[in-house]
Amino acid sequence: MSYSPLLIRLIDALRCMPGVGRKSAQRIAFHLLERDRGGASTLATALGDAMEGIGHCSQCRMFSEYDLCAICSAPGRDETLLCAVESPADVMAVEDATGYRGHYFVLMGHLSPLDGIGPEELGLSLLEDRLSNGSLQELIIATNPTVEGDATAHFLSELARRHNVEASRIAHGVPLGGELEFVDSGTLSHAFSGRQVVD
Amino acid sequence: MSYSPLLIRLIDALRCMPGVGRKSAQRIAFHLLERDRGGASTLATALGDAMEGIGHCSQCRMFSEYDLCAICSAPGRDETLLCAVESPADVMAVEDATGYRGHYFVLMGHLSPLDGIGPEELGLSLLEDRLSNGSLQELIIATNPTVEGDATAHFLSELARRHNVEASRIAHGVPLGGELEFVDSGTLSHAFSGRQVVD
Repeated sequence: MSYSPLLIRLIDALRCMPGVGRKSAQRIAFHLLERDRGGASTLATALGDAMEGIGHCSQCRMFSEYDLCAICSAPGRDETLLCAVESPADVMAVEDATGYRGHYFVLMGHLSPLDGIGPEELGLSLLEDRLSNGSLQELIIATNPTVEGDATAHFLSELARRHNVEASRIAHGVPLGGELEFVDSGTLSHAFSGRQVVD
Repeated sequence: MSYSPLLIRLIDALRCMPGVGRKSAQRIAFHLLERDRGGASTLATALGDAMEGIGHCSQCRMFSEYDLCAICSAPGRDETLLCAVESPADVMAVEDATGYRGHYFVLMGHLSPLDGIGPEELGLSLLEDRLSNGSLQELIIATNPTVEGDATAHFLSELARRHNVEASRIAHGVPLGGELEFVDSGTLSHAFSGRQVVD
C-alpha cells in the first residue's frame, strides 16, 4: 500500500530540487497540500513560465528572459570594466556589497576538465569577443578562491593578457570581523604572504 | 538592479515551501535553470495536477484524488481496528514498520485550542460516525507523545469510551537501541513508571 498516484508523482517530482530527498519531499508535499495550496499553484505557474521563458543574456550569460539582461541594457554603466564571476548569485552579491557599476560576465561554472567543463562550456569565446573589441580596460576576476576557481582565474588572466586588457583578481585573506585564531591555515598563510605595505 | 521579472517571480514562489528562505530559493532556482529544466517542468505539472486533484478520503481524511483512499478501498483489511494518527506521513510510518492491517483515521493535526484547532477541525464527527456504527472493536491511538498529542489522545479515548469501543495507545519508552544514559529524563521517567511484569 502506498500514496495515491498523484501524490506519488508530486513527491517524486519535488526531488528534482537540490538537497531534497524522499523524506523532505514528503514533508514539503504535505505542507503544501495542507496549508498552502494557493502558494503551490503559484509556484507551479512560476516554474512553468520560468523554464519556458528564461534563457541567457546574449552578452553576459546572466539568466534573463530578454536578449539583454537588466545590467547589460542599463544606461550609464562603465563600459571599460568587466567583472567575471562563476554564477548569477555572485553578480547579486557583488552588486549588493560593492559600488561597482561596470559590466559582468557570468561563466556559469568553472573550468573542470574531469567534468567535461572546458572554455567552450564557460562561453569564453563570447568573453574573448568582449576582450578584443577594444572598449575594455580591466577584467576583474571574481571567481571563487577554490582550486577550480583559481585555475579558471589563471586561464582568464592569460586570455586578458593576450588581448592587452589588464586583469585583476579580488583580494583574498582574513575576512573582516574574523579572528586570526579561528581562520583556517590556508587563508591565514595566503593573507600573510599577500601582506601589503602600510603607509 | 536585480534579477529579471520571471526569475524574481520564481524565487518568490519557491519560498512557499517550508524551510526555504531567500537564499535557498535562489539556489534552487539557479540549480533548476542550470541543470534540471526537465525536472522543473515535470514538477510544475505535478504541482498543478496535485493541487487541483488531491482532496481528502471521505472515510479516513487521508490525501487522495479518489473518494476513498487506497487503504479504505483495499479489500481484506480488518474492519474492526482503527488507528488514529496525526498526519498522512504517520500512516506510511505505521504501514512500513508494523504488520498492522486495520484501517486508519488521519486527524490532520492535533487539538490546539490556541491555534483554533478543535474537534471540528480534526474531523472528529467523522470519527464518531465510525465509532458509533458498531463494527469497530478497538481504537488504536497513535498521536505523537507531545503535550498536544497527549491531550488529543485523552480526548479520543473519552470519545471511544462513550461509544463502547476499546481505546489503546501505542507504547512510549526507551527506543530500541537507545542507551539509558542518553535518553531524555521525561522519556526515562515515563518508561520507568510504565514498567511491565516480566514473565
